[in-house]
Amino acid sequence: MSGWLAIAGLGPGDEALVTPEVTAALAEATDVVGYIPYVARVAPRAGLTLHASDNRVELGRAALALDLAAQGRRVVVVSSGDPGVFAMAAAVFEALEAGPEAWRGLDIRVLPGITAMLAASARAGAPLGHDFCAINLSDNLKPWALIEKRLRLAVEADFATAFYNPRSKARPHGFARVLELLLEVCGPDRPILFARAVSTPEEALRIVPLGRATPEMADMRTMVILGSSQTRWIEGTARPILYTPRSVGAGA
Amino acid sequence: MSGWLAIAGLGPGDEALVTPEVTAALAEATDVVGYIPYVARVAPRAGLTLHASDNRVELGRAALALDLAAQGRRVVVVSSGDPGVFAMAAAVFEALEAGPEAWRGLDIRVLPGITAMLAASARAGAPLGHDFCAINLSDNLKPWALIEKRLRLAVEADFATAFYNPRSKARPHGFARVLELLLEVCGPDRPILFARAVSTPEEALRIVPLGRATPEMADMRTMVILGSSQTRWIEGTARPILYTPRSVGAGA
Repeated sequence: MSGWLAIAGLGPGDEALVTPEVTAALAEATDVVGYIPYVARVAPRAGLTLHASDNRVELGRAALALDLAAQGRRVVVVSSGDPGVFAMAAAVFEALEAGPEAWRGLDIRVLPGITAMLAASARAGAPLGHDFCAINLSDNLKPWALIEKRLRLAVEADFATAFYNPRSKARPHGFARVLELLLEVCGPDRPILFARAVSTPEEALRIVPLGRATPEMADMRTMVILGSSQTRWIEGTARPILYTPRSVGAGA
Repeated sequence: MSGWLAIAGLGPGDEALVTPEVTAALAEATDVVGYIPYVARVAPRAGLTLHASDNRVELGRAALALDLAAQGRRVVVVSSGDPGVFAMAAAVFEALEAGPEAWRGLDIRVLPGITAMLAASARAGAPLGHDFCAINLSDNLKPWALIEKRLRLAVEADFATAFYNPRSKARPHGFARVLELLLEVCGPDRPILFARAVSTPEEALRIVPLGRATPEMADMRTMVILGSSQTRWIEGTARPILYTPRSVGAGA
């Protein structure tokens, strides 16, 4: 039995952003496990079983993958972006820790990918070019008060901030509160990037000052990046450029 | 004249972590510009001029690349990791903003890569699986007081934290102060990862509780990741696993 489990990142959408390491793992796999739209990105072939499941069943999906690997299968769990950033890697280790002792002997690898904030940042310029943080705005998995606390501290630290999962049909109101809070503490001129479906045919980028940002500018497929107080916005170029300089003066 | 400039991320070292998009840009380039060890990763070929320069001359290197593109050359600026994270993309936009008006018409793209924290996190498990931040510990480009302020706020926000450039020969003492500060605010049991030269033949990983961390565990090639209060450390596996669960309870 030479089963293994690879937890792989498919990047933001464009196949040119999938690493050769991930492509090689998929070529050797007997089973691919993941959320329906991510599994749909893997080409079917003889000898490969695709296990697609719905959203919000991450622990069950993780247990299935671990169990298949324990049976000697070569399993790839697919995430979009990077599997270690608000994705399946943590779910697999949660399942591993809670599961049978035998799972601890498995050969498990995490294969990194281009996470959404790096793809969005690249398209807009370099808004994450200085210290930054990444916050998941979904309150499915943490209390809302903790999200607000982190937002305030991130602004106080003057990080640029990448927001994952800003808005969904099930949570239409949280992002409006986030924008209100940010406007209150950052003022109306701070630039904010809305980067939708980056690297896909539906890609759309928009940079606006915070005072003109509205909740409808984000949906489930949008990555939102708020600049720090130092972030600069260059216009008069082919596309607007948002970047955060590498240095901060002693007065900052 | 069909010059262009691509600012590309070569990932942490392993060629299997270079995206096909970056490989394609390098295949079309007439000029590659970058820091000596990164340019050394690009295979020489007829028709390709390599422009390798020393560290700490980022703005001059950026200006050279912009000037070559303005002359109609096809230029790739190479960074390790991701060019938008503590790397060359911000330097290019700084040079662009300060440079001649003609540069604003150039075709400039940023091609994302696997940044060091994602590679290190993948090797260790998923320590960045929940909200996190990234801080550059070099005080070449910002005052030390700002680094300390950000460390304290990051701990207060209970982010996992990735530290870039923790220690160099020119700055041997700063990281010792960082560890003292973290020990004071996080206590001795918080796990900290030292991931050196990830994905290269010299790769070495070490996870220790903060109370046993010493400055010598990091050097210029080390990525350091401090867990949040929620980060878990699984032992009894083939390799120790560090991961941060996706959820935080209402009491946290």
